[in-house]
Amino acid sequence: MKFDPLFEALKEKIKIVDEVIFELIPEKEPKIIYDAARHYPLAGGKRIRPFIVLTSTEAVGGNPEKAVYAAAAVELLHNYSLVHDDIMDMDEKRRGRPTVHKVWGVNMAILAGDLLFSKVFEAVAKIPVEAEKVVKVLDVISKTSNELCEGQARDLEFENKETVTIDEYMKMISGKTGALIDASATIGGLIGTENNEYIQALSKYGRNVGIAFQIWDDVLDLIADEEKLGKPVGSDIRKGKKTIIVAHFLENASEEDKLKFFKVFGKYAGDVKGEGIIEEDIQEEVKKAIDLLKKYGSTDYAANLARKLIEEAKEALKALPESEARKHLELLADFIVEREY
Amino acid sequence: MKFDPLFEALKEKIKIVDEVIFELIPEKEPKIIYDAARHYPLAGGKRIRPFIVLTSTEAVGGNPEKAVYAAAAVELLHNYSLVHDDIMDMDEKRRGRPTVHKVWGVNMAILAGDLLFSKVFEAVAKIPVEAEKVVKVLDVISKTSNELCEGQARDLEFENKETVTIDEYMKMISGKTGALIDASATIGGLIGTENNEYIQALSKYGRNVGIAFQIWDDVLDLIADEEKLGKPVGSDIRKGKKTIIVAHFLENASEEDKLKFFKVFGKYAGDVKGEGIIEEDIQEEVKKAIDLLKKYGSTDYAANLARKLIEEAKEALKALPESEARKHLELLADFIVEREY
Repeated sequence: MKFDPLFEALKEKIKIVDEVIFELIPEKEPKIIYDAARHYPLAGGKRIRPFIVLTSTEAVGGNPEKAVYAAAAVELLHNYSLVHDDIMDMDEKRRGRPTVHKVWGVNMAILAGDLLFSKVFEAVAKIPVEAEKVVKVLDVISKTSNELCEGQARDLEFENKETVTIDEYMKMISGKTGALIDASATIGGLIGTENNEYIQALSKYGRNVGIAFQIWDDVLDLIADEEKLGKPVGSDIRKGKKTIIVAHFLENASEEDKLKFFKVFGKYAGDVKGEGIIEEDIQEEVKKAIDLLKKYGSTDYAANLARKLIEEAKEALKALPESEARKHLELLADFIVEREY
Repeated sequence: MKFDPLFEALKEKIKIVDEVIFELIPEKEPKIIYDAARHYPLAGGKRIRPFIVLTSTEAVGGNPEKAVYAAAAVELLHNYSLVHDDIMDMDEKRRGRPTVHKVWGVNMAILAGDLLFSKVFEAVAKIPVEAEKVVKVLDVISKTSNELCEGQARDLEFENKETVTIDEYMKMISGKTGALIDASATIGGLIGTENNEYIQALSKYGRNVGIAFQIWDDVLDLIADEEKLGKPVGSDIRKGKKTIIVAHFLENASEEDKLKFFKVFGKYAGDVKGEGIIEEDIQEEVKKAIDLLKKYGSTDYAANLARKLIEEAKEALKALPESEARKHLELLADFIVEREY
């Protein structure tokens, strides 16, 4: 199949990164905080970000072995942000397991996230390249984690807003998911080369892939096969999540259709079974809301935007010499907007 | 007065650090998270840690101007830990103002703490010394923030424990307050010199001062003048806080006296006014508990331990050449166990 070489490379490259991750967060005292910190990394995850670090180093002609600690750092940063975001979003499940705060309570979850964040920088200090490069990586990672916080702050603000524009959405998502994938590619480049043109190409690739990744997630929520997705279609609409699709709809729909949409949007966030509402009725309502989004081309708009970002990402990669690693990065970009789950 | 030269030096040195702190966390978008992050730094605080960084650099013959970003980094790290600890401890006031989570809610407080933590590393990347030294500072700071998390995890665990030993207390406090003051002195040394003997002396000084600082706080809670302290004497007993004084008492008291103590300890944590208990009666009960601690010499034990740690801290400093900066570090050590608030 098209993506098999990608999945094989991913599986192979990730082993050594996992070794380093669990060397940084071993089983040790105080047990409770290390157990909590290990919870998500042990549960798996796609490990796309560390894969991008290693493959980017390779794609610019560098030695990926030098990038293993950097790869562990971005994965730890990703996991820290998941732990804290899950508290804020009151999510109960992640990677098929109860979230950290569900198992250990909010206080220990805050602390476990803090420890993971701290370990990011312990990992950076261990990157076996010239100190000048380590400081450059540190600069990129710290600015990236600023951006993550800013993106999440914007996302929290969305909850208190009636409407969100496409522009506001793009700013939020650029910080919340674009920044870290950008950083993964950029850091991989920094470790492997002195060629700024290559590094900038990788940065552009990563930013676009990161943004497209989230947009495609939002699209899948509306168009996916429920069984493949593993959750009910339209769950974002139930929760009232302000995606780019909703932002496009709000900028284009008639007042009448907006009113219809808001009758459903965010109305089935919690458990409404006890209120005498039956699941079939909800699904019917949600389906109508999805049809409204389709009526104004909002779903297509988002899907096309994601595909366009991916094309631009692959275009940017052409600044790099042809190689197997570059091929893998291209495949990964395609995978983002061809996946069905 | 004895400490006037210290206070003057502190006031003078801190100006430039504050400039850098607010350069790192300016007023900017998204406004809400930057406002929340600026809340504690704007409220003041003693700035002892950045003072130790700059003065340590000077005391080993280095240029303190090179240490300003490092000083800002440790103060930001301190403030991040305060924001998150206040959430965990459900504290409502800090530096005379409502805590961050009281003003902006728990979610934004988690995020503001995260941003402050992130800014620590942005500051480290900006330290204007050779890259090799920056990486050394990064290594110290990241391991210190691991220790902070571990210390706070131990502290949270204390809440679920019936008793705590002196040994367990010392481990907790070494991480929670010893590590960061150790790091402040160590980093100041690292920036100013290549002499490892000096750096180790400063590390020992900082660790001891940090531990003594917390122990003296615990002592003051029992012996201070209520007006100078700004809170009721024995408030740790009301809250059931397991200090080293309590640990010593539990290791030495008779079963009968322990039972008497536990009748009061932690029993007046929240607002008990509505339960028909009057303040005078509580104060009488708390006074009896304090007398029990004194009966077994537990308060004296702690006070003497703090003084001994300070003597050792000053002894360690003798490895450094005599200078005004060293004198200030000595004065600061004395101040820790001579202050009445």
